[in-house]
Amino acid sequence: MSLLVAVTGWQPDMWLDHFGRSARGLTVVDARAPYDPAEVRYAAVWKPKPGLLAGLVHLEAIFNLGAGVDALIADATLPAVPVVRVVDPDLTRRMTEYVVWQVLHHHRAGFHFHSAQSERRWRPLADQPAAGDVRIGIMGLGVLGRDAASALRRLGFDVAGWSRRGDAASDVPVFAGAAGLDAFLARTDILVVLLPLTPETRGILNAGLFARLARDGRLGGPVLINAGRGGLQVETDIIAALADGTLLGASLDVFEAEPLSSDSPLWAAPNVVITPHAAADSDPRRLCGYVLDQIERHRAGLALDNVVDRMTGY
Amino acid sequence: MSLLVAVTGWQPDMWLDHFGRSARGLTVVDARAPYDPAEVRYAAVWKPKPGLLAGLVHLEAIFNLGAGVDALIADATLPAVPVVRVVDPDLTRRMTEYVVWQVLHHHRAGFHFHSAQSERRWRPLADQPAAGDVRIGIMGLGVLGRDAASALRRLGFDVAGWSRRGDAASDVPVFAGAAGLDAFLARTDILVVLLPLTPETRGILNAGLFARLARDGRLGGPVLINAGRGGLQVETDIIAALADGTLLGASLDVFEAEPLSSDSPLWAAPNVVITPHAAADSDPRRLCGYVLDQIERHRAGLALDNVVDRMTGY
Repeated sequence: MSLLVAVTGWQPDMWLDHFGRSARGLTVVDARAPYDPAEVRYAAVWKPKPGLLAGLVHLEAIFNLGAGVDALIADATLPAVPVVRVVDPDLTRRMTEYVVWQVLHHHRAGFHFHSAQSERRWRPLADQPAAGDVRIGIMGLGVLGRDAASALRRLGFDVAGWSRRGDAASDVPVFAGAAGLDAFLARTDILVVLLPLTPETRGILNAGLFARLARDGRLGGPVLINAGRGGLQVETDIIAALADGTLLGASLDVFEAEPLSSDSPLWAAPNVVITPHAAADSDPRRLCGYVLDQIERHRAGLALDNVVDRMTGY
Repeated sequence: MSLLVAVTGWQPDMWLDHFGRSARGLTVVDARAPYDPAEVRYAAVWKPKPGLLAGLVHLEAIFNLGAGVDALIADATLPAVPVVRVVDPDLTRRMTEYVVWQVLHHHRAGFHFHSAQSERRWRPLADQPAAGDVRIGIMGLGVLGRDAASALRRLGFDVAGWSRRGDAASDVPVFAGAAGLDAFLARTDILVVLLPLTPETRGILNAGLFARLARDGRLGGPVLINAGRGGLQVETDIIAALADGTLLGASLDVFEAEPLSSDSPLWAAPNVVITPHAAADSDPRRLCGYVLDQIERHRAGLALDNVVDRMTGY
């Protein structure tokens, strides 16, 4: 009985090493070397080559090692077995750190103070709004969005959320679906995006959406923080919106193409923080434990957690 | 019955305006204009000229409009009436925002990503420690220190505190007094300073203290965040410690002399964030309400809150 490890881009040897050390009776096999497809019951993958999993006749479940499953389920040859998303408290905490950090950077005028410092000038602000005066809107109220909402509320921000179905349990006001989007955007000063990438959300962060964000906020203009997926955003629209003031600033951790090309205008756009898809780095030790725990429960006849709905894409 | 408003540095007219609008039967008088000293029962002050309050024979209480009372109680001519500190939930929240922001900046390698961005280079980190791997030490466990501790714990950091007396109620481990200081510093990766300035704490942030901070942490060296008072720190020692690696970085909001001189080496020291005493700007509307509420309760025979102990200085 084998666990196939197929990791592209990230260091495959490190993942093989971590799985191998605590495999609990499974044989861990490397997708880059010869293996017996009939033996493979589970696969732990990140962006596997399309078609790679198609011939695994005894495959029982696929574990996706990152938060985004869009690339994986776009493979039409994927066997019809459960696809499990990683939901890890460590990953959630890291994402919340990033969101809180970037919200505070914009809220507390990080660009202003940085430029004052580089000019050796003492330049206090005439007016620093309180957190309660700043409206955060979180798009996507899964585990990540709800935790970020709760941490931002703890700091005093005025937080609301938007989700496609609107049915997420949350301790913040929730706007739902296309019908709720206008009202949600109109009360949002800092837009935090933690949506999955699906056919419905691709390119959702575009000029039309930016124009509907609040213009009457205390920060002087709306701010975009995208820590979801690069495919959500239209980068030419972001660049134009920053140039003409439709957006005051942005923090982007994900991009249409990664790594971001060195000639992208985003690197030097005004009031923009660029990070290299680093908002929530997976910790391989923890994620291997998560996958092996789930396999153990599955062998014992229990249900898998966090199975992706292939119709909605998350 | 008058309330004397004596504000130096900050905009006195704005304070007079806010107090005047909601004075509740008190006459609000301006210390810069003629007034009848015998009528003054209360004074709302920020750095009043030494001696200014000495002749107020009917003075019943002094309200200090900022968090630091050191400058005020250093005036030997100050009448022997209660001095009340500002303790405002808004001010506490602002200070916690600043502390969380700066902790996250150092924890999440803000300098690394900023320099990568300015070079248009995609440079993920090989190893981003989790919050639980980073030890925060908070010096000063008053209202501000305890709230910052709680917010940092919410984000998953390993938080401990130090206070002179060690008796502060807190949900984090507390080290006490001179005896506890070594052990506290030895387990601290990011030192957050929210101490009052007293004869005992003046210059406490010096080379000897920096050398006792943890050298075995995940960030590669200890970090200093001072949002307390400038007099706590020895700036020549901070500059030397940053230069020789005893400190990896620092965030400084307060300085020995303010505004910080444009020729201070601190502006361009490595891994330093300078802000112009802006960590927790007072909101005059809220603080005026706080002072007037206390006066109302005092007129009704109730005790004043947050009276300074002139022996300890806070």
